[in-house]
Amino acid sequence: MNRHFDRRYDRLRQRVDRRLATMALHGAPDELHRACRYVLTGGGKRLRAILVLLSAEAVGGRAHRALDAAAAVEIMHNFTLVHDDVMDHARTRRGRPTVHVRWNLNTALLTGDTLLAVAYKSLLHTPHVAGCGIVRLFTQGVIDVCEGQALDMEYEKRDNVSVREYFTMIEKKTGRLISTATELGALIGGGTAGQARALHRFGHYLGRAFQLQDDLLDVFGSEEELGKTIGGDIIEGKRTFLLLTALERARGSDRRLLQRVARRSTGGAETPFTARARRAFVARVRDLYAAYGVIDETRRLVGRNTHRALALLSTLPASPARDMLAWLSDKLIHRAS
Amino acid sequence: MNRHFDRRYDRLRQRVDRRLATMALHGAPDELHRACRYVLTGGGKRLRAILVLLSAEAVGGRAHRALDAAAAVEIMHNFTLVHDDVMDHARTRRGRPTVHVRWNLNTALLTGDTLLAVAYKSLLHTPHVAGCGIVRLFTQGVIDVCEGQALDMEYEKRDNVSVREYFTMIEKKTGRLISTATELGALIGGGTAGQARALHRFGHYLGRAFQLQDDLLDVFGSEEELGKTIGGDIIEGKRTFLLLTALERARGSDRRLLQRVARRSTGGAETPFTARARRAFVARVRDLYAAYGVIDETRRLVGRNTHRALALLSTLPASPARDMLAWLSDKLIHRAS
Repeated sequence: MNRHFDRRYDRLRQRVDRRLATMALHGAPDELHRACRYVLTGGGKRLRAILVLLSAEAVGGRAHRALDAAAAVEIMHNFTLVHDDVMDHARTRRGRPTVHVRWNLNTALLTGDTLLAVAYKSLLHTPHVAGCGIVRLFTQGVIDVCEGQALDMEYEKRDNVSVREYFTMIEKKTGRLISTATELGALIGGGTAGQARALHRFGHYLGRAFQLQDDLLDVFGSEEELGKTIGGDIIEGKRTFLLLTALERARGSDRRLLQRVARRSTGGAETPFTARARRAFVARVRDLYAAYGVIDETRRLVGRNTHRALALLSTLPASPARDMLAWLSDKLIHRAS
Repeated sequence: MNRHFDRRYDRLRQRVDRRLATMALHGAPDELHRACRYVLTGGGKRLRAILVLLSAEAVGGRAHRALDAAAAVEIMHNFTLVHDDVMDHARTRRGRPTVHVRWNLNTALLTGDTLLAVAYKSLLHTPHVAGCGIVRLFTQGVIDVCEGQALDMEYEKRDNVSVREYFTMIEKKTGRLISTATELGALIGGGTAGQARALHRFGHYLGRAFQLQDDLLDVFGSEEELGKTIGGDIIEGKRTFLLLTALERARGSDRRLLQRVARRSTGGAETPFTARARRAFVARVRDLYAAYGVIDETRRLVGRNTHRALALLSTLPASPARDMLAWLSDKLIHRAS
């Protein structure tokens, strides 16, 4: 069964890739269009697009009618990556130089802007959609994702971020695009209002489990599979669920060590680590997370949110697409990268 | 009559300003929302928004039903200003610090992104619009404006830009938003396909006349009324109609002087001017423009494009809104700032 799903995932991904290639622009202005093509043909899991397609099928619709919306969600995701990479000074993305490194800041700015408009263009190709309901949903998704990124940036400068604020931030920054994808699929697939709501909430819990797992992977992932160095979040002082929960629990010298981690986000005083000192620092913080039960707590929350997501799926009629959404949820939560 | 139109313009502008104030977001993320409010309440002529309202009336529609679309066009215009100011390293806009100066690059990036989505949100509030035709038109407008800005940036690095390329660039960068505004108004006002096309083309010619007039004002405007220094385009080596036409006509030492102007866009070798040397340089270039008939040619083209715009208006039924569009065209072309 799993091999069957794997093959289907690959076929869907190829369809999305082909559609993205046709959305790519050509001719003048040459540099802008080359940068847009560079981004859209750079690979990736196409997870959000495939969630649109499977959600449409899971309510009895046809995947091919949701393909324009699937491409739109993927293009929108890539718009956020191009601009986020500028804001985070990221040098590489999917093993290639980021747009502002390969070209320059101005091209990265305009490439992101153009991709957002191209995402709308793709969405508006969706056949036989009465009214602009899907465009409204998509627009609120864009606003929420921008707000999530703004919250993330604000939190980096604050040392009193609560776990509750963290959940608000990741719900907008990571979760909203996933729940927008699943709800869009349900609407285009002709699902009932109840099914659209169920798939929206499925996306919400899946997104939360996905992000918590992401926080865990930074501490426990395999370096080869992850394609990045373990402990990056700790070194950058990112406000993860792990750090914020540990900060709420620890006292004394443990707390002071965690506060040192948090202060790293603003750069400033800390001197750069040698590779060895870095490994030792990450190990000390990881041991603290374990000692305060934060690792167990995170794993429990990943499990609880996955369980809620799967329970929502079970309210839909049985279908191969529904089973594949369950398989995909499981795969995402148990991924090593 | 003119005083009547002046008063009506002010009333319409106030309505647009009030609507923009209601679109402003509040609460967390605080900095992003403050920056969005800063941009939307920063004043401006609201020209594009008022073109939407008057175009709706000129085809027999009601202005208040086009108010959401008018606000959308204005918000979209402001999105482009925020990002363009980053790309152009502009320090002030409408007499206040630009967003990236007042806050920082990241906030300017996210403010622009958010404003574009808020523009869509406003557009989607438009009542009783069947289908997503206006959203498609708006989306193509966004793509064209981004392409126009990209062309402008590409041209700055090239020393062989033709007058024809210049017109392609300004048609996208400046003209498209104006023709999108007038066509949107026609569609929302319930105009026929022919009326929508006429108002689109009216916007096209008006935009072209407006931009050519802008090029002229840089050389002949009044410094107080313009709010910026005369000859800025020359000092920055901007590819204006004046410069490109003069380059096509001049030979010998005159041509070499103009090439020196064009090379200023890439910064590089030229040392900064003293105020006195700057005035002398601008005066020399202006004299060259005059000697090669470029000033006369530009004035002729402003007249011809205005004439075409007015001829298109005359295909619409007589109405106060149509008269006011004609008055507004005339006012724009004879403006001193």
